[in-house]
Amino acid sequence: MSSVYVKDIGEFGLIESIAYWIRRGTEVSDEEPHDLQLSIGDDAAVWRADKALNVWTTDTMVAGIHFSLSFADWSSVGWKIIAVNMSDIAAMGATANYALVTLGLPEDTLVQDVEQLYIGMTDISNQEGIRIIGGDLVKSPVLFVTVSLIGTAQESVLMRSAAKDGDLVVTSGFPGLSAAGLRILSDGRQINSEYGTLLADAHLRPQARTTLGKSLLTSGVRAAIDTSDGLIADLKKLCSASQVAATIDWSLVPVHPALPILFPDDWSSLILNGGEEYELIFTATAPVLERLLSESSEKLNVIGQIIAGDPGAVTVTNSSFGEIDLTHTGWDHFLQ
Amino acid sequence: MSSVYVKDIGEFGLIESIAYWIRRGTEVSDEEPHDLQLSIGDDAAVWRADKALNVWTTDTMVAGIHFSLSFADWSSVGWKIIAVNMSDIAAMGATANYALVTLGLPEDTLVQDVEQLYIGMTDISNQEGIRIIGGDLVKSPVLFVTVSLIGTAQESVLMRSAAKDGDLVVTSGFPGLSAAGLRILSDGRQINSEYGTLLADAHLRPQARTTLGKSLLTSGVRAAIDTSDGLIADLKKLCSASQVAATIDWSLVPVHPALPILFPDDWSSLILNGGEEYELIFTATAPVLERLLSESSEKLNVIGQIIAGDPGAVTVTNSSFGEIDLTHTGWDHFLQ
Repeated sequence: MSSVYVKDIGEFGLIESIAYWIRRGTEVSDEEPHDLQLSIGDDAAVWRADKALNVWTTDTMVAGIHFSLSFADWSSVGWKIIAVNMSDIAAMGATANYALVTLGLPEDTLVQDVEQLYIGMTDISNQEGIRIIGGDLVKSPVLFVTVSLIGTAQESVLMRSAAKDGDLVVTSGFPGLSAAGLRILSDGRQINSEYGTLLADAHLRPQARTTLGKSLLTSGVRAAIDTSDGLIADLKKLCSASQVAATIDWSLVPVHPALPILFPDDWSSLILNGGEEYELIFTATAPVLERLLSESSEKLNVIGQIIAGDPGAVTVTNSSFGEIDLTHTGWDHFLQ
Repeated sequence: MSSVYVKDIGEFGLIESIAYWIRRGTEVSDEEPHDLQLSIGDDAAVWRADKALNVWTTDTMVAGIHFSLSFADWSSVGWKIIAVNMSDIAAMGATANYALVTLGLPEDTLVQDVEQLYIGMTDISNQEGIRIIGGDLVKSPVLFVTVSLIGTAQESVLMRSAAKDGDLVVTSGFPGLSAAGLRILSDGRQINSEYGTLLADAHLRPQARTTLGKSLLTSGVRAAIDTSDGLIADLKKLCSASQVAATIDWSLVPVHPALPILFPDDWSSLILNGGEEYELIFTATAPVLERLLSESSEKLNVIGQIIAGDPGAVTVTNSSFGEIDLTHTGWDHFLQ
């Protein structure tokens, strides 16, 4: 098959192809969550919505900055940009409904690569119950993908600013897997065990904690953030917004066995500073957490406590090193 | 004053500055159109919305492709990216409420330039009654700005697909001014008359036809599109979506006197193929148009008629040349 580039079919040819790929890839459920009136093909997308809290986010990935096509396939890039946005909606305890997709494309982009991008996007959109209903297509010297997601919540949302002195600090999942996956992928390291796939998937095809976000809200949790910048960095943001401090007990932080095995020198840095993870950190009183744990099957670990103190200050207590204040030093310095 | 670059203050320093520029630049009205709950500073923006038709769009401008900083100042780029999005909302007859702004910035971008960008954005946002409530900030080798706008309509919207055989074709404003302004700016041509400013402003600081869009809807107009790709190109899109054809009477097309004076060789091409204009083309029956004209003070010109025919075919009748079918030839070929 000869190669067909974006410049060969032009903007309007590509829009038609994209509309087809979305139609083909979208599993339409019998009951639409909302009444979609206009999708791709008019000046704007339109749907009839009930009275609700609207929750709206946007995230962008730029080639060479947020991903590398030398080890990320196009379908994974499509998956991940939706997952990243979904994670913001999950961190609010909300439900996402619709997406707009903007592509900045070099004119020598292969049309089949754009198709793969949409396969990744529609795969995760089906899983998450969202629909791509529009966007924009622009020529650009560098590839970038911007997604905007909109959703709704009924009564209230999880906020960064709602943590209270005395709350327990809880995280979902295992921190550090995505950063470890990135390290393996960018080093071209071959891992002949299930760990290789696990870590690569954690980086390339993350899962947003959509169900957990909603469970948090119904259980009475009020404060949450996703760990897109890493465990410590995002906990600092949550503490800063809530005007509180936090102390983390290092012995309580969940450690995936792959990390010390594959990264004996700096596995703890991967865990604390990883980033590009889409787990949730939240804070809750003990009774609220008990209620949540009795109803949820998610992997959750209490790792510390919210305390009164310098807003945004996060301290990690380590039985080997004593108490280390990360506020000013930054965790990297500590590890060197 | 020494130069401060984005890389000097970092992502979080820049987010704080942006939040300040938006607060400083936003004229808060006494009555918020909706109940804004969370703006910049959480994982997503949140507002309480009533039952309504939601109208949602996004548009992107890339440096070197959609604008050149060699003649566009940063404040104009900020103004224009909001205007371009507003025009999509105007073409639906809707009201815009909120904006998300994504910036892709090279790390050697001057902080004061980003400030100018936000001054342009908040200036037009105040004029249009919208608020910037979030966005994303990413490092990128090329500067780009993506805006997403959301708004509402009460009963219905203007659609590309609603033109009917027999409708009159109407356009607002003077087509070609923006393309003429771009020509002057990129040629560095000095125009020592009011025309120079008029044309440069038409290109750099366009006005979306927000009020007109709403008047169309209340007068009973059903079909409209904005002229972001040019008069003929966008009329073709409207006809294609409506499964009709159109005939334009060249003698009815409004000609701004600046164009034949400053561009004696190809002023008619600027008018028909200009692009980057944000006027509205709409179609209406004679009684609907009469009602609209009795209520509206906008400059409106009937330029032709919707007819049955090859979907998307647009014909321009010119007393000098006879009838020219633009469907397959494209207007550029005709003019050469």
